[in-house]
Amino acid sequence: MKLYSYFRSSASFRVRIALQIKGLPYDYQAVHLLRGEHRDPAYASMVGDALVPALVTDEGAVLPQSMAIMEYLEELHPTPALLPATPLARARVRGLAQMVACEIHPLNNPRVLKYLTGTLGADEEAKTTWYRHWVRQGLEAFERQLVLLAAERQAAGDSPSVYCWGESPTLADCCLVPQIFNARRFEVPLAGLPLTMAAFDACMALPAFQQAQPSACPDHQI
Amino acid sequence: MKLYSYFRSSASFRVRIALQIKGLPYDYQAVHLLRGEHRDPAYASMVGDALVPALVTDEGAVLPQSMAIMEYLEELHPTPALLPATPLARARVRGLAQMVACEIHPLNNPRVLKYLTGTLGADEEAKTTWYRHWVRQGLEAFERQLVLLAAERQAAGDSPSVYCWGESPTLADCCLVPQIFNARRFEVPLAGLPLTMAAFDACMALPAFQQAQPSACPDHQI
Repeated sequence: MKLYSYFRSSASFRVRIALQIKGLPYDYQAVHLLRGEHRDPAYASMVGDALVPALVTDEGAVLPQSMAIMEYLEELHPTPALLPATPLARARVRGLAQMVACEIHPLNNPRVLKYLTGTLGADEEAKTTWYRHWVRQGLEAFERQLVLLAAERQAAGDSPSVYCWGESPTLADCCLVPQIFNARRFEVPLAGLPLTMAAFDACMALPAFQQAQPSACPDHQI
Repeated sequence: MKLYSYFRSSASFRVRIALQIKGLPYDYQAVHLLRGEHRDPAYASMVGDALVPALVTDEGAVLPQSMAIMEYLEELHPTPALLPATPLARARVRGLAQMVACEIHPLNNPRVLKYLTGTLGADEEAKTTWYRHWVRQGLEAFERQLVLLAAERQAAGDSPSVYCWGESPTLADCCLVPQIFNARRFEVPLAGLPLTMAAFDACMALPAFQQAQPSACPDHQI
């Protein structure tokens, strides 16, 4: 397999974590977003949305969209599992993952920030305020959901979660961890999010998350 | 089952389509977003992200996030299927769905538009330009992906798609149709998107999509 990735791309980071957890080897193909390499005709003609990540399967199919890629990896390589066993638990995990992928991250990717400062003429301070607003608001919602799920697990007699949901990392953690990396880069306050940050810390104690992080990528610049 | 929904919410509309296609009866619980009913403590204490939709299962579990809800419905009620049979085809469908759910829709929901005109002080014209920009750019990417998938199907000897992917509606159509409804409401130009609009038209010829549309909702206002 081949992964088109940019070291700092949060969506690429998700897929790198999933590949590491599952122990799947892959060729790393750097696509430098800030240099606009995703708009190169050779890349854009292969990937409909011209974004990263894109996974190229061993059969040569090119798959866009991080969430779809991770579900594909889960179906083909179910162990170690990134989704729990029951439909309800899977909905819990997917719901958390989508809270990051559909509510937080889309508002803060480079093309959106560029539109703010370019077309809308926002200054750097307004851009940073925008960024922090959506990340903080989204993470507070994430924390509230973790509190609800903790109560649900307790009521069901299940042990407290170590990660976002349960005792092993899931798709939810694959989404949360890159978002926290980005939050820290933009100095978003992370106080008052105890369950969220406990899950983050538990993840970062695992080699798979360490190996997938931006600073471990071939295209990482000091 | 019970669905917390707002007639005009694109994410609610997705789930309504899935429920209709699968023929699953449900209680419709209106949450009026513009009146801020989603922020009522009774609702917000039940749904971590305080957004719509939320599905309440027969066992009383409250599930947020439309994509997670649809996957849950698909797992519990696999027929008629909203996902095709093979992992690659499923990745194709999920990829298209996420192109709407993660790239287009998040930039245009009411809370984002409100931030633009409120905090950022954008005028109505700048807001509408923002809306049209992201929807048009996202739908063009969607169309490019449909073109790539049409070539892939042809190379594999498969028949041309009737819907977004294949010969029956999928999660991709559940996401696309509400986005086109919203695009029309904001007068986004839809010329030059032949495969996308053919899929939309094929969907709207089906009773399930008609029955799920905003004007068929109990909370629809004339």
